[in-house]
Amino acid sequence: MTKNTKVNAAILIIGNEILSGRTQDTNTTTLALWLNSLGVKVNEVRVIPDIEKKIVDTLNILRKENDYVFTTGGIGPTHDDITAQSVSKAFGLKYEIHKEAFKILEAYYKPGEFNEGRQKMVKMPENAKLILNPTSGAPGFSVNNVFCLPGVPSILKSMLGGLKNEIVGGEPILSHTISLKTVESEIANSLSKVQKDNKDVEIGSYPFFHAGKLGVSIVLRSENQSKIDICNSQILDFIKEKNIEIVDR
Amino acid sequence: MTKNTKVNAAILIIGNEILSGRTQDTNTTTLALWLNSLGVKVNEVRVIPDIEKKIVDTLNILRKENDYVFTTGGIGPTHDDITAQSVSKAFGLKYEIHKEAFKILEAYYKPGEFNEGRQKMVKMPENAKLILNPTSGAPGFSVNNVFCLPGVPSILKSMLGGLKNEIVGGEPILSHTISLKTVESEIANSLSKVQKDNKDVEIGSYPFFHAGKLGVSIVLRSENQSKIDICNSQILDFIKEKNIEIVDR
Repeated sequence: MTKNTKVNAAILIIGNEILSGRTQDTNTTTLALWLNSLGVKVNEVRVIPDIEKKIVDTLNILRKENDYVFTTGGIGPTHDDITAQSVSKAFGLKYEIHKEAFKILEAYYKPGEFNEGRQKMVKMPENAKLILNPTSGAPGFSVNNVFCLPGVPSILKSMLGGLKNEIVGGEPILSHTISLKTVESEIANSLSKVQKDNKDVEIGSYPFFHAGKLGVSIVLRSENQSKIDICNSQILDFIKEKNIEIVDR
Repeated sequence: MTKNTKVNAAILIIGNEILSGRTQDTNTTTLALWLNSLGVKVNEVRVIPDIEKKIVDTLNILRKENDYVFTTGGIGPTHDDITAQSVSKAFGLKYEIHKEAFKILEAYYKPGEFNEGRQKMVKMPENAKLILNPTSGAPGFSVNNVFCLPGVPSILKSMLGGLKNEIVGGEPILSHTISLKTVESEIANSLSKVQKDNKDVEIGSYPFFHAGKLGVSIVLRSENQSKIDICNSQILDFIKEKNIEIVDR
């Protein structure tokens, strides 16, 4: 069973370097954990190449299906950075120099260093709202429910703090994990029964093989702590019956 | 510029644990590097929750748009493992016990241990082709151009060797990386000119901040080594002109 919360989001990772396997994406995890803490559930993630039509088409699907869309990557100064122009096209907006962003970067660089390459970073969809960048100057931006962030993980992380008040989430999604010294097939039927009795709790079962330990983590997720507690006690009951050991993970 | 090779694939990661941020996906990188080595380019990755309708709909889009689709996750014994039944539905095939898989797991477990929970793992789309699992017994499977693998990274990796002969790729995709002690905006214009002159080479520019070093990696990708070499020499030319240092990364 999977439940939907009231507020949801999609993450759109833009970049050939993820698709080629050269770079391991970590921004999904960063954004998902941050969004969870704000009561926003991630419905879907897509990773797509630096191709304008693909970005425009994908964005136009995701922004209609989700309350929020977060893009990462493609807002730097080089030829393969085409997120801002693609977002402009998706919304049918002019792609132009953003005056406030221009002032920020003009002040950020030494006189004469705010060159043509860097000026590309202040071209955005008209009337875009800036997302300030405390790490490296060049801001991200938002248009309606679409928030465009950089691909470099440390810079992305540094920009989330300033974004918190822009996101209106639902109830925070709570979770509880029970790790067991067992294998999934020993608990599959009992766990299935607990899921049937607790439709408002999302129950996940994840085998682990870690540091010589083998086991299963059961993860309970819901906005409602008391529902998690009921579910938890039913699981503790069958664990006790089956004489299964709880372990740290 | 992004070029398409003749053979392409999509990766479909199925699992709430990735969307919640609990688990960091690494299977994308594993599959992408492996597919590249076989001459298959990854066009798109999607991460979706354990919801049957979402799996069916997404699979029916991706399997038509791509030469191959690789799914990860959802083939274990618990209630949240619904990949096999969803693939059956996507193809309009019966979801039934696979005789060969049954025999494999019957022999794998001790007498009496091949219980109801474990028997779920041998239910597959009718006539599915097995993907053998040298790590933990339970096989994956393929139907037409869709290959279903487990979510646990070490098990997934162990199954790729047996799959190699099933995948018919194009020319292997070659790549060359030049790392520079510079910032992207210093080279953006020159790099853009090189890209315009070398449309068959995909040129990516990736800033890095690592171990106190700050720089940019330029990645050249093509099936054609001589095209990469031409592109490389044009880049070395402008680097020399600009007096930019090449660094190890």
